[in-house]
Amino acid sequence: MGTLREECGVFGIFAQNTCDVASDVYYGLYALQHRGQESCGIVVNDDGLFRTHRDLGLVNDVFDHAAMELLGQGNMAVGHVRYGTTGATDRYNTQPIVVNHSKGRMALAHNGNIVNSLPLREELENKGSIFHTTSDTEVISYLITGERLTAPSIEEAVNRAMTRIRGAYSLVIMSPTKLIAVRDENGFRPLCYGKTPDGSYIVASESCALDAVGATFERDLEPGEILVFDKNGVRSIRDHCGKVPPSFCVFEYIYFARPDSVIDGACVHDARVRAGEFLAEEHPVEADVVIGVPDSGLDAAIGYSRASGIPYNIGFIKNKYIGRTFISPGQKSREDKVKIKLNPIPSVVRGKRVILVDDSMVRGTTSRRIVKLLREAGAVEVHARFSAPPFIAPCYYGTDIDSKEMLIACKHTLDEIAEIIDVDSLGYLSVEHVKMLAGKEKGYCTACFDEHYPTETPLDTRKDRFERKISENGKEDK
Amino acid sequence: MGTLREECGVFGIFAQNTCDVASDVYYGLYALQHRGQESCGIVVNDDGLFRTHRDLGLVNDVFDHAAMELLGQGNMAVGHVRYGTTGATDRYNTQPIVVNHSKGRMALAHNGNIVNSLPLREELENKGSIFHTTSDTEVISYLITGERLTAPSIEEAVNRAMTRIRGAYSLVIMSPTKLIAVRDENGFRPLCYGKTPDGSYIVASESCALDAVGATFERDLEPGEILVFDKNGVRSIRDHCGKVPPSFCVFEYIYFARPDSVIDGACVHDARVRAGEFLAEEHPVEADVVIGVPDSGLDAAIGYSRASGIPYNIGFIKNKYIGRTFISPGQKSREDKVKIKLNPIPSVVRGKRVILVDDSMVRGTTSRRIVKLLREAGAVEVHARFSAPPFIAPCYYGTDIDSKEMLIACKHTLDEIAEIIDVDSLGYLSVEHVKMLAGKEKGYCTACFDEHYPTETPLDTRKDRFERKISENGKEDK
Amino acid sequence: MGTLREECGVFGIFAQNTCDVASDVYYGLYALQHRGQESCGIVVNDDGLFRTHRDLGLVNDVFDHAAMELLGQGNMAVGHVRYGTTGATDRYNTQPIVVNHSKGRMALAHNGNIVNSLPLREELENKGSIFHTTSDTEVISYLITGERLTAPSIEEAVNRAMTRIRGAYSLVIMSPTKLIAVRDENGFRPLCYGKTPDGSYIVASESCALDAVGATFERDLEPGEILVFDKNGVRSIRDHCGKVPPSFCVFEYIYFARPDSVIDGACVHDARVRAGEFLAEEHPVEADVVIGVPDSGLDAAIGYSRASGIPYNIGFIKNKYIGRTFISPGQKSREDKVKIKLNPIPSVVRGKRVILVDDSMVRGTTSRRIVKLLREAGAVEVHARFSAPPFIAPCYYGTDIDSKEMLIACKHTLDEIAEIIDVDSLGYLSVEHVKMLAGKEKGYCTACFDEHYPTETPLDTRKDRFERKISENGKEDK
Amino acid sequence: MGTLREECGVFGIFAQNTCDVASDVYYGLYALQHRGQESCGIVVNDDGLFRTHRDLGLVNDVFDHAAMELLGQGNMAVGHVRYGTTGATDRYNTQPIVVNHSKGRMALAHNGNIVNSLPLREELENKGSIFHTTSDTEVISYLITGERLTAPSIEEAVNRAMTRIRGAYSLVIMSPTKLIAVRDENGFRPLCYGKTPDGSYIVASESCALDAVGATFERDLEPGEILVFDKNGVRSIRDHCGKVPPSFCVFEYIYFARPDSVIDGACVHDARVRAGEFLAEEHPVEADVVIGVPDSGLDAAIGYSRASGIPYNIGFIKNKYIGRTFISPGQKSREDKVKIKLNPIPSVVRGKRVILVDDSMVRGTTSRRIVKLLREAGAVEVHARFSAPPFIAPCYYGTDIDSKEMLIACKHTLDEIAEIIDVDSLGYLSVEHVKMLAGKEKGYCTACFDEHYPTETPLDTRKDRFERKISENGKEDK
Repeated sequence: MGTLREECGVFGIFAQNTCDVASDVYYGLYALQHRGQESCGIVVNDDGLFRTHRDLGLVNDVFDHAAMELLGQGNMAVGHVRYGTTGATDRYNTQPIVVNHSKGRMALAHNGNIVNSLPLREELENKGSIFHTTSDTEVISYLITGERLTAPSIEEAVNRAMTRIRGAYSLVIMSPTKLIAVRDENGFRPLCYGKTPDGSYIVASESCALDAVGATFERDLEPGEILVFDKNGVRSIRDHCGKVPPSFCVFEYIYFARPDSVIDGACVHDARVRAGEFLAEEHPVEADVVIGVPDSGLDAAIGYSRASGIPYNIGFIKNKYIGRTFISPGQKSREDKVKIKLNPIPSVVRGKRVILVDDSMVRGTTSRRIVKLLREAGAVEVHARFSAPPFIAPCYYGTDIDSKEMLIACKHTLDEIAEIIDVDSLGYLSVEHVKMLAGKEKGYCTACFDEHYPTETPLDTRKDRFERKISENGKEDK
Repeated sequence: MGTLREECGVFGIFAQNTCDVASDVYYGLYALQHRGQESCGIVVNDDGLFRTHRDLGLVNDVFDHAAMELLGQGNMAVGHVRYGTTGATDRYNTQPIVVNHSKGRMALAHNGNIVNSLPLREELENKGSIFHTTSDTEVISYLITGERLTAPSIEEAVNRAMTRIRGAYSLVIMSPTKLIAVRDENGFRPLCYGKTPDGSYIVASESCALDAVGATFERDLEPGEILVFDKNGVRSIRDHCGKVPPSFCVFEYIYFARPDSVIDGACVHDARVRAGEFLAEEHPVEADVVIGVPDSGLDAAIGYSRASGIPYNIGFIKNKYIGRTFISPGQKSREDKVKIKLNPIPSVVRGKRVILVDDSMVRGTTSRRIVKLLREAGAVEVHARFSAPPFIAPCYYGTDIDSKEMLIACKHTLDEIAEIIDVDSLGYLSVEHVKMLAGKEKGYCTACFDEHYPTETPLDTRKDRFERKISENGKEDK
Repeated sequence: MGTLREECGVFGIFAQNTCDVASDVYYGLYALQHRGQESCGIVVNDDGLFRTHRDLGLVNDVFDHAAMELLGQGNMAVGHVRYGTTGATDRYNTQPIVVNHSKGRMALAHNGNIVNSLPLREELENKGSIFHTTSDTEVISYLITGERLTAPSIEEAVNRAMTRIRGAYSLVIMSPTKLIAVRDENGFRPLCYGKTPDGSYIVASESCALDAVGATFERDLEPGEILVFDKNGVRSIRDHCGKVPPSFCVFEYIYFARPDSVIDGACVHDARVRAGEFLAEEHPVEADVVIGVPDSGLDAAIGYSRASGIPYNIGFIKNKYIGRTFISPGQKSREDKVKIKLNPIPSVVRGKRVILVDDSMVRGTTSRRIVKLLREAGAVEVHARFSAPPFIAPCYYGTDIDSKEMLIACKHTLDEIAEIIDVDSLGYLSVEHVKMLAGKEKGYCTACFDEHYPTETPLDTRKDRFERKISENGKEDK
Repeated sequence: MGTLREECGVFGIFAQNTCDVASDVYYGLYALQHRGQESCGIVVNDDGLFRTHRDLGLVNDVFDHAAMELLGQGNMAVGHVRYGTTGATDRYNTQPIVVNHSKGRMALAHNGNIVNSLPLREELENKGSIFHTTSDTEVISYLITGERLTAPSIEEAVNRAMTRIRGAYSLVIMSPTKLIAVRDENGFRPLCYGKTPDGSYIVASESCALDAVGATFERDLEPGEILVFDKNGVRSIRDHCGKVPPSFCVFEYIYFARPDSVIDGACVHDARVRAGEFLAEEHPVEADVVIGVPDSGLDAAIGYSRASGIPYNIGFIKNKYIGRTFISPGQKSREDKVKIKLNPIPSVVRGKRVILVDDSMVRGTTSRRIVKLLREAGAVEVHARFSAPPFIAPCYYGTDIDSKEMLIACKHTLDEIAEIIDVDSLGYLSVEHVKMLAGKEKGYCTACFDEHYPTETPLDTRKDRFERKISENGKEDK
């Protein structure tokens, strides 16, 4: 029932000969759809000629037969799914970006968020550059193109550009002859590659997209690594590896990634079951039934049940026809709408002490409504358990955990929160346990839980951005 | 993972004054969307003036803001969701049907299938009637209108028409001043009514639609009962009650209805959990994990786990963006497509003996692919358990279990089936247990399992229909 | 600049073998588009199987490649263009109507308006018939189907039905094996047939549609004639010919028909030029230039110039991108909108005495605005000449000259009208001259000019209709 | 019947206060629709905030109520209509272009074609710039933005950028506080301004757009002039005026502009009538009737008739529902299609010696078909007269007269052409008379008739472009 949003998913294919690469990207993006539902795009490389189709909408809306025919065959392709704000003009922010430049054509798909895009943008504009979008992806493309004026190859241009970029970025870049995958030196976002039985190389944000095209998982990219796929096979550039400690976004395990993906060696479903087991250990309570909030709380609910011995059951039916296009006509309150999405099964909770497991809580509003539904359905006790620590700080690396004012845990004590959402007890997973979700401890970014940011932050430049916005919209004085 | 389809869901509201009744129907149809995804429609009664909007598509596609504004306010409304074949012209088969006749206007929404529509249609055509659709709903509307020429009231016209109609029908009928709900004398399809806090009466195929509009469940209609809602309240006509033994479609419990609905006194989720428990009792096996095929096998899997003590886990991730509009571009085989919809979680099944629970098996093709996915993911044994008996006969009452040639259980022994779908063992729920799913034995239609049809069947008239089709498409000789 | 609207155009083809008949209908309807712009439809007869595509919109919007592919090949086809009121539900009033009945399939396209549809409809409803549209075309289809229960052939059923129908109707009917063309006994609306070089028979409302498919004009149907096209060639049934004097709608010559069509022996353009010549004779005036209101006033302006010797020039530029979809955003007044459609050429009228020729005047509003534009552009005198007599009575035969209250000539004297529209002189064509437009005098309907209706009128039944409407929308009392 | 295409039309408004400026641009673009039918766009300036809507399609398709609501109110706005090639990605070439840069926001609409865009683009790319479109408008926006880094004002930046640009450009530029109109120093394309009764300044490609919004024509911009509209009124910058002799595109008079527009002091309709008069003088012939090819040949036909005394008549009816979306389904030849667009009126030409007047001839194919239609309709002689000299050279200034290979006059003598298009005599207007179309001789570009190009041409850079295209689509070698 999470309302947090990841910003993007990326996918690329390098085939051994001309074939229906667009179809593979289609299936791959389909599998990555959970990482972005606002727009999507595919660029096919047909022997150096790029054909592009991008639009607002879900993968199977945007890529109808006409679009697939337009894309045609090729030997390489890249694709992208994106979450973004709405509006007709936003069509111009769809990815992959295509750059047509005399020094070489390039398509670029990006997942993440760079923290120094504003100063970089200012610097480039002061040299006369014009930006057509508001995305930091365009900043990256400018940096790479700038380096290409002098670099001996595109991968070297990418390598040089990486010295300027700070923050989270998993990139897939396609030149006329090469497919290049890049993971930032912190390794914030996942990126892996695999190989199909017929020798195509696949790059994807998550391994579930490799499964979707029948590819075998090879390995995750290391933080800071550049992989170059071309007719000579695959080559790794590691100039940026090991420079900083890794800081993988732990929320990929907790919420963003698909349970059937394996990231950096750990299965996401297992990590979530383990979160439920840790929760049972940290916050035990006597109860009759454990239920999860569909879909993201189900794995952890099974873990809690397993560790506590309290029976697991299905407590809510989620209306599976609710999509992002859900338009609420008429006068219904937001509370009614939760009921339309989620309906409790009364016989499961009536007269019962219920343990309710969810992944996380942002503002508390949704949790309060869900608890209310359980009580109306006859639950005598409700014990909320969250498989993440409280959010106390914004994320600058590509999710929309944005401002402290919105975060319930910034403004209230645990007791207050329990009262607000009307539960009999409340338990969050500890930051210590969070770091053990993948089985063994590894380098995580837990900034949203503890404010330990692994990079510089855009806090100062954010101030700039605010002022810039004012001046952009304001009067010109000359 | 079922591929069977119910044909329809119906909804009606009688409000105490003019209000946003269309919005309530919208939410109700949303909750009934699982009963029909091809088309939908709403007719609003604004003090005798009917406003209609119907189209192909899901509820939240068809009813955008413009459509809701067109419908406007009223004091009554009826709605319908429908499964049907595709094609532009099929738009003319959408419901509710609206009849404008000098003897009175009427809107009619129908769930079910009548078995004597062909002879009735012939009889009416021989009197000069012209049918505009191929649906049996139009036959019903003709019969009622025919009776209205002499009947003292619309409910009496309905009552008289019922003597002619055989088969399954749950109807909601709206005249300028009355809302009428009808359940056929066998009670094949569910139909219940409730009341909202502000006094509106709600009629719906399933109780989950009452929940969606905040109505309290009053009771199911009895088989053969007519309920009339008007300004004097609610009145029951029971001339057709108790004439034949009830024969409720047991597959509503097993697959069609939503788990959170309560039908004829039993919660659907509970019935399914019970099916899993019966299965564990009938077909025990040693294994490491019980998994369900999402979404319809999950409840029974929990029941099997509970009764057997073998741990329950999530074995498959279902891509939740797969809709009815899934277009498969390119050359992927059907096997690949199953993988795109369902991806196994390898760590859950690898090296394990797996019990796989699903609701039913029609042709066996899907089951075979699912088993293959499990084996590729490393399952060492796969034991299939189905919470329904084998299908051996067609259904004439509104589902698409159609011809014997398609049904795997008609052509093969259990051992052969186990070999075809490649499982280590295979177990179906017995017909005896099926009759106990609602907790206590009651009158069921189990014709698709045992060929005991509770009414006449259209077998002879089907032969007629075939010949008629030939002559319709053929040459006219005069 | 006329704002009157014809209701329909019809087209049919009987080919000698299976071919792309839909394409011919497409071109034919394209040529008839001026007779109806709200909706259109084509039904293809593929060896007895009917495929239909109908929708709201212009011919080249409705019939895209997908629609044409759906229609496919056949050996017969009928098509229809229609003017009608707007609204999503109006889609159900599109034509051709297709009747699927056990006595035989039939498609029917109708141009005209029958005057006794209301009593016929009542009679049919009292036998239990249900109407799905509000069009009189459905009444005709019911009558024909009723006769088919006993008639030995479809043409005989049509022949019998004609005895019941009063008013204007040009019909094209398609059975599985025959194409039938019918013109009412008064001959209100045009209907002709021709033959293509490869032997296909074509039936069309106007000869310009024969030109569009490369067919040679054979002849107009006689009033009351039935033509039957089948594998034996063409056969005429003349039981209804000569029973009443012909009464062709003279407004087809004046405004409705396309100038390049030839109807009942006279070229429409020539008839209009002749109207201008008569006008110059009846209403001479000294002036410097003659201009026509585009497009319908241009031919008569040339005639006026020719007869008077006063030079013809182009006085207005009509924006050719103005379509029926012209949406006026914002706050512009209706006067501004006329200016957007029509812009005067100042150098043509500045300082000039201008004779302004138009086809007719309904309410006077448009004429007033056009005169105002001329005066603002510098015309010193404006003399209005109309190539039709004043409208003083409603038309019941398929045009929208509706109620006396709207007609400026019913409420004002000529002098008052001249003052209202602000012209220096005003001249209408006389009814006597109107009857000579085709060169020789022939039987015309001039009811809208002189109230001599050639048939019974629906005046009484109109009263019924009004009451019926009340009761339909009102409360039902039993 | 011309098939030549102008590339664009521009429109701008500077209002005295916040109002519905988008509506005025809508009406203005409507009047300029003939200058470009492929795409259109409007940018509204709401106190420094820019709102944009652009899309492929005609003005009244693109700007529906939702789009107009999105644009909202403002105090300035610019708009654009464009002709361009089709294709989904072409959406990115729509105008006005909006530049968001730290030195100031800018919207830019362009009519014309600059001849040195390729070397300018290379130069900018070598500094690291990235182009997102293939249009020269983006080159102009880069040049202006580059100058803004140092210029004291936007108008000075524009003034400086003009020293680099060669070719045809009529620009409307909008900054947060200023509206700027620019006409290139040759004055190839028209551009004028006017004032509405409530004090708004209007800039438009043609005066017919001023009429459409009720503005009074003030004057044409001079070649090389910059006009700046801001809160202080209007100011002229003339640094680039008078540097080169004017060379207005004479084809604006002959074909592109609307007849009701007045350009550089001459009414377009009058110029065309004059062309017909010159033609009668240069190429007299005995004949019975003069007809024009609709719509562009009608004015000159009237002139020819007036000068020769041979009667004018309407010879063709043009189907007014033919739009740019005309899709030809099926197997019809191109000859058939001409017949569907244009149908001759047989009674006008049968047995007659016909003078056929058209504006120009490019490849001769259309003319041949039109002549054939006349002969089939019974014309005994056909004499073709064109109100333009033969095309012998490509245009580099914004029309699509492209390559010599396509031009019939480059490959054939007059006698050969007469034979090819099957006319009894053939006459073109002489270049000398063309220069007198506006009444008095003035500076014209007649390069397409005589190869005297008033600027450098892109011939060399065109070679570059070809090679560049190869390398862009080809393999990258590093």
